Amino acid sequence: MGTLNELFDPDRVAVVGATAREGAVGRAVTSNLLDDFDGDTVPVNPNYDEVLGTPCVDEVGDADADVAVVVVPPSIVLDAIEACGAAGVRNVVVITAGFGETGEDGAARERRLAEIADEHDLDLVGPNSLGIMSTPSGMNATFGPENALPGGLSFMSQSGAFVTAVLDWANDNGIGFKDVVSLGNKAVLDETDFVDHWGDDEETDVIIGYLEGIEDGREFIETARETTRDTPIVAVKSGRTSAGAQAASSHTGTLAGSDKAYEAGLDQAGVIRAESVDELFDSAGILGSQPLPDTDSVAIVTNAGGPGVMATDAVGDADLDMASFTRETTDRLADAMPEEANIHNPVDVIGDADVERFREALEITVADDDVGAALVLAAPTATIDFDELAGAITDVSDEMDAPVAACLMGGDRTREPKQRLQAKGIPCYFDPARGIESLATLARYRDIREREYAPPMSFDVDRERAREILGAVRDRDDNRLGVEAMELLDAYGIPTPDGEIVDTPERAAEVASGIDGDVVMKIVSPDILHKSDIGGVAVGVADADVADTYEDLITRARNYQPDATVLGVQVQEMVDLEDGVETIVGMNRDPQFGPLLMFGLGGIFVEVMEDTTFRVAPVSEPEAREMTEEIQSAPLLRGARGRDPVDVDAVVETIGRLSQLVTDFPAILELDINPLVALPDADGGANAAAVDVRLTVDPEALDPEALDPVDADPEVTDSEEPTND
Amino acid sequence: MGTLNELFDPDRVAVVGATAREGAVGRAVTSNLLDDFDGDTVPVNPNYDEVLGTPCVDEVGDADADVAVVVVPPSIVLDAIEACGAAGVRNVVVITAGFGETGEDGAARERRLAEIADEHDLDLVGPNSLGIMSTPSGMNATFGPENALPGGLSFMSQSGAFVTAVLDWANDNGIGFKDVVSLGNKAVLDETDFVDHWGDDEETDVIIGYLEGIEDGREFIETARETTRDTPIVAVKSGRTSAGAQAASSHTGTLAGSDKAYEAGLDQAGVIRAESVDELFDSAGILGSQPLPDTDSVAIVTNAGGPGVMATDAVGDADLDMASFTRETTDRLADAMPEEANIHNPVDVIGDADVERFREALEITVADDDVGAALVLAAPTATIDFDELAGAITDVSDEMDAPVAACLMGGDRTREPKQRLQAKGIPCYFDPARGIESLATLARYRDIREREYAPPMSFDVDRERAREILGAVRDRDDNRLGVEAMELLDAYGIPTPDGEIVDTPERAAEVASGIDGDVVMKIVSPDILHKSDIGGVAVGVADADVADTYEDLITRARNYQPDATVLGVQVQEMVDLEDGVETIVGMNRDPQFGPLLMFGLGGIFVEVMEDTTFRVAPVSEPEAREMTEEIQSAPLLRGARGRDPVDVDAVVETIGRLSQLVTDFPAILELDINPLVALPDADGGANAAAVDVRLTVDPEALDPEALDPVDADPEVTDSEEPTND
Repeated sequence: MGTLNELFDPDRVAVVGATAREGAVGRAVTSNLLDDFDGDTVPVNPNYDEVLGTPCVDEVGDADADVAVVVVPPSIVLDAIEACGAAGVRNVVVITAGFGETGEDGAARERRLAEIADEHDLDLVGPNSLGIMSTPSGMNATFGPENALPGGLSFMSQSGAFVTAVLDWANDNGIGFKDVVSLGNKAVLDETDFVDHWGDDEETDVIIGYLEGIEDGREFIETARETTRDTPIVAVKSGRTSAGAQAASSHTGTLAGSDKAYEAGLDQAGVIRAESVDELFDSAGILGSQPLPDTDSVAIVTNAGGPGVMATDAVGDADLDMASFTRETTDRLADAMPEEANIHNPVDVIGDADVERFREALEITVADDDVGAALVLAAPTATIDFDELAGAITDVSDEMDAPVAACLMGGDRTREPKQRLQAKGIPCYFDPARGIESLATLARYRDIREREYAPPMSFDVDRERAREILGAVRDRDDNRLGVEAMELLDAYGIPTPDGEIVDTPERAAEVASGIDGDVVMKIVSPDILHKSDIGGVAVGVADADVADTYEDLITRARNYQPDATVLGVQVQEMVDLEDGVETIVGMNRDPQFGPLLMFGLGGIFVEVMEDTTFRVAPVSEPEAREMTEEIQSAPLLRGARGRDPVDVDAVVETIGRLSQLVTDFPAILELDINPLVALPDADGGANAAAVDVRLTVDPEALDPEALDPVDADPEVTDSEEPTND
Repeated sequence: MGTLNELFDPDRVAVVGATAREGAVGRAVTSNLLDDFDGDTVPVNPNYDEVLGTPCVDEVGDADADVAVVVVPPSIVLDAIEACGAAGVRNVVVITAGFGETGEDGAARERRLAEIADEHDLDLVGPNSLGIMSTPSGMNATFGPENALPGGLSFMSQSGAFVTAVLDWANDNGIGFKDVVSLGNKAVLDETDFVDHWGDDEETDVIIGYLEGIEDGREFIETARETTRDTPIVAVKSGRTSAGAQAASSHTGTLAGSDKAYEAGLDQAGVIRAESVDELFDSAGILGSQPLPDTDSVAIVTNAGGPGVMATDAVGDADLDMASFTRETTDRLADAMPEEANIHNPVDVIGDADVERFREALEITVADDDVGAALVLAAPTATIDFDELAGAITDVSDEMDAPVAACLMGGDRTREPKQRLQAKGIPCYFDPARGIESLATLARYRDIREREYAPPMSFDVDRERAREILGAVRDRDDNRLGVEAMELLDAYGIPTPDGEIVDTPERAAEVASGIDGDVVMKIVSPDILHKSDIGGVAVGVADADVADTYEDLITRARNYQPDATVLGVQVQEMVDLEDGVETIVGMNRDPQFGPLLMFGLGGIFVEVMEDTTFRVAPVSEPEAREMTEEIQSAPLLRGARGRDPVDVDAVVETIGRLSQLVTDFPAILELDINPLVALPDADGGANAAAVDVRLTVDPEALDPEALDPVDADPEVTDSEEPTND
């Protein structure tokens, strides 16, 4: 029983703005409800006594409804919702358009709408929604032309037209739904609410979505992770490309975050992302009907050599494996098949095979423990009747724990066998690649289901000091910090080279004398971004030269840019770059998902090779570790080409500490540690060093209150025991 | 009029082995021919007077046929072919199986078959073929169940089952063919012959292929390049993955080359490679019916915002651009559309649009000069009739020079409009991505058609010296050469550091004294592959130390491997690696495509990042240059990160000279120049240096005759004027 049960399973639905006027949305909604809804439909309209033969009430308060569908003109929508709230109708579907999608006036109206909903604690869909459907009660509270067939898919869409198109197609292809919701502008209820609801709904087998944006990325991730334990989620997230994102933004009036963030966030959420409509329904179909495979190994049984090769290619493309049969299996196949047959995978029962030979080959192969899934692939021959073959496949499938897909390669003769297979939940295609891809989706979901989500990395850090350092930025003209942000890293336990920022040559010399060996000196100025370009960096300075170098650096800065604010000079321990590997750990804040972490190897690897990986923060230890493993240049961290491996644990810990810092302080908009030098494992001491850092803060968020850590939960702040160390 | 015109357009076809026995292949072929063939069908079988009511002759010599279809048992196939040859039947289709695909005996029989065909100069299809079809004359010389519909696609397939499956599907979907050939084992005629024929056949609009291998890659490339000037070629090449290649090899009994070679070779040939059956026919369909776009810019006209976003994403995925409309276009759209419409691309005519509004929007957008192609994308609404919309699209399309595709998103209601569109050659899908991808295929083919193929790079080289060096390998126990192959590079004008291989300490000192600065010394032994691992390389040796270092290196080699053949020590000029970029230029010989060149940046870029590119040799100057441009690390050659750019011309020239060397000498099986150091552009002198080289030769090919250059055409050998320098 989901959290929105009353919305999807009401006893009485009021249509606020019901009318019998031809072509009106209010007529379409009323008529749709009257046609199929098992409960009561109550037209609400002070101008009529009855609508379409059903008695009409003047006010929603008279309707005694659980759900109100609002179709009145935009100018009176707010009043109508207010009336719903006052009347105790907790579920409202606002179909009326003319809100956030139409410009600033509409956006203001939408904000007010959300406030009213909040005041009355309403579960509100829309505005600008096509409506909702729920098939068990036959409720079609939309103005669309068709009701859905009953089934196990629950479908949410940020495009009403897409709902209409999909239903038209699904009805003609026998694909059924439990619930359907057109999300509209998502002023109140959004994708996360529906995922949460359907996750608890036993009649929903698979959740599918068409999304152009996600309102609250972090909340979505948390909720979806919980949901995908039992219920798979497949979604198209459009606006993937920059042109697409622009089109989406002009379509919905909201700013979409970067696709890197969606890619990382949806993956962390356990959502299977589809890139096309075909993929969406192929995936949803098989997830709703077939068991999950125990292994990634696929057996192919075919009467056609060439298509068998195509299917084998598709297995490799889909990151699955071709099953290696046991000796017992090949012996059994050898006994049962003619000599010309291929008894290895792909099994070729050859052109003169009848249905019985197919059946036997399938039975023998799926009995092999290595086989996780099977594809039956048939070309038309004189000896094969596709309908009989479909029957054999469903028979064997009934006895199987493993999933099966079919490819019947032909024209009209495949139609009925295909329906027969689909009725038993067995997907059937022409193209071998599509059959294999649908099996791959099952393996993908099995992996998602088996994921163990660890808690975010959390360390004992000095939040108070971090807050003071960020607070100090308020007094500056600039919202960017350079090396002076080193202290912030230090407060969060991220290892930085010894040193400090000084503002006299004498102090520079003093600091240098306290550091072993030569030092690096860098000008510190928020106005000079490219320090090395102006000679603002001196490397390998001996103690004796430190004071002179200080003067030199200051002079250069003044000459380069007389009006630059120069905060001083950083005197820093030299980090041995020779033995280390330069990495970059960065963060920028995505409008939907919040802090997005980036990891890559420094220099050419990020800049030229674009070899980077992303995660939405906060990250767990396994997530941070994956980041260090999944970049293509990862072998360089592990000692490729005869070098010592670096201490990857130190890199993972740094990612975790940065994750904690940027999660704690939303005022940090961007942060790059570049380079973070990863050093070979040595006894004791930190084997990573943040040599340089850049940081941008949100000046708006720099007042003392906003600077409070996001989550002041004592459970976390008082944690004395870091979960990772 | 193609080269195989008689094969596809005969007056009389003999069926050798014709029979009326139920279930026999000979019956199916005879019956298929008798059913539809406009010409004469002559059964040949000494056991019958007539077959299926048609008079039967005893011998093929009595048939007076242009084409003989051979369906007799394998044991008498050779005699039957011999008889065809003797009787002057120049075209033979061998359906009988039991040849190369069945093991060594069959392979021997197949070799003999090819010899007979050669003796009689036969154009022979098969063996192990389903047969051939040609629709203008209604000739169905296959044993398949269905004849093809007439159309403009000519189709070759290395899988007979795939032909059967495709025809079954195509017939039910109104897709027609000019010619169809099941290639079988390709003992005589192969894909290149059919490409060549159809390239000259005016009734063939598009050539499509299902291939598991290509017999002669170089010949295929040359022929396909010529053909694709007028006739597009789309092909599935299966066996792309290693498992798929293994399956293909067990299916056809032939060894497939590496997919890297196919990828490079098919691209160089101008073949559009499809990865699935859907892609194959989507591409072929639109190529056969729509004009090519002038630009890569696509206009989208839709009544559905969400699907419009999906289509926009697909434009980015397909490497096309969204058209930017001129001011005139947006003004015209603003006049014609309601205020809520989006007049920028994707144009949203909004949900209440009727067909006229769609038509107007389409007319206005395609009139914009920037628009190269258009997609009309419609969701079902109360105001749109899909059939009328299909009519409007075909009307506008008739007036347009630009291609158009349609997406009608719905169920059964799309069936008839889709047929109406397809009858006019306009592709129609549900999924917006598929519509865009088909438009992308047109842009792809336009680029192929516009390619200018330059001749292979050719330089004035010392072939005779190269031949002597390779010849000397005959006297050795090993077929690998290390640094001693430097001379070979030198003979082909590939710059190598100064130096030579010496076999006394005295001579080492003498050579070193003739070289500016310190030298590098390397042990030269075919038995020691990893010289540096055993201390067999000394870097930065001053002249005074050369003689001692010589002794050291020899001692180390002897200690490491007492039985190693030590040819001496290479004394070599030091190449300044600091200023240069290490690259790798390599070659290995593919069984189908011959010499496959590889280029990448040295060290981690090839080994860890797998950032490499391939071309089949010989390459033209533009092809060699593309290799240096298309690797992801290419910016490093062009001076990324503040370094001087290297002399890319010198790298391009080296690729060209290597291409010439490995093309001239098929005895060279593998060759790696690693590193080829690319240096910054300096005045005069070579700005690239082949610092190390490894080479493997084919001992079988080392007899003097085989060592003759492949192409001793004086036109090339005498070329005094290098085409590139």
